[in-house]
Amino acid sequence: MGLSLEFDAAHRLPNYDGKCARVHGHTYEVEVVLEGPVDDGSGFLMDFYDLKQILKSVLEELDHRDLNEILANPTAERIAEHIKAGLEDRLIATPAVLVSVKLWEGKNKWVMVE
Amino acid sequence: MGLSLEFDAAHRLPNYDGKCARVHGHTYEVEVVLEGPVDDGSGFLMDFYDLKQILKSVLEELDHRDLNEILANPTAERIAEHIKAGLEDRLIATPAVLVSVKLWEGKNKWVMVE
Amino acid sequence: MGLSLEFDAAHRLPNYDGKCARVHGHTYEVEVVLEGPVDDGSGFLMDFYDLKQILKSVLEELDHRDLNEILANPTAERIAEHIKAGLEDRLIATPAVLVSVKLWEGKNKWVMVE
Repeated sequence: MGLSLEFDAAHRLPNYDGKCARVHGHTYEVEVVLEGPVDDGSGFLMDFYDLKQILKSVLEELDHRDLNEILANPTAERIAEHIKAGLEDRLIATPAVLVSVKLWEGKNKWVMVE
Repeated sequence: MGLSLEFDAAHRLPNYDGKCARVHGHTYEVEVVLEGPVDDGSGFLMDFYDLKQILKSVLEELDHRDLNEILANPTAERIAEHIKAGLEDRLIATPAVLVSVKLWEGKNKWVMVE
Repeated sequence: MGLSLEFDAAHRLPNYDGKCARVHGHTYEVEVVLEGPVDDGSGFLMDFYDLKQILKSVLEELDHRDLNEILANPTAERIAEHIKAGLEDRLIATPAVLVSVKLWEGKNKWVMVE
């Protein structure tokens, strides 16, 4: 199953030789993919509502923030790894396994960590 | 190859403790993914038009219906499994193999059965 | 990582028995997926900007063209294979490995070559 949410944040890439070294920002979209058994009683792996609350709680730290205050070099790859770590902590108590975190930086480019 | 279509249907989740137990509905999007050999003559695996007709014939049963008249507990997972079974019957006569059925319930959440 | 771009082109399918045998056209969308190690210094696999330039250079040949002047039978599958070959040539000098090329012919149907 998958669920996506957006957040808006500023960042700059300190090691970058070009305009990404300047402060700018993006509307990021995050898609979380989980897998696991479908429960016979509920008929689903996990309630979409619960997954949304988990993802929102992870993104709370990043939304409308300066990502350079959280990560030294906030490339899409590093942000996605950071989100993945936060999700794994919160998914331990569930039967679902985290398969991947996909992060779009704008509309037509993305990274994925598995 | 993949092809997607939408359908609109009502459902409620009888085992759910919350507002999904009430009758509501969604615009569902279904994406079918097939794989197989590309035919030397036609230059494709299957005509997109033929795949669209097959998927439409499966969704005919579900579009503008109350899904609880078809499935006891019509969660996204159960609906996707139902669509997959209908597709497999209709794809037997083709060289294509069904890889997955992905079902979006609204815009930003989905399930996939393989 | 992935990046997508659009191009607009005319084509007809000479072996097709139906309206696709007539000259028509599509807004195609191409998504390129790469994988490889994240560089410790830059913090990314490849600069999105560089990948965009590479993909643009491949699509330059196809955009606003008659695809039948380039390919004998320009089905989505054959176009995707052609794009993949062009990308592989240009990615040899990078640490990234091409995973797949996905080509949408219009909005809701696509092929993928791996």
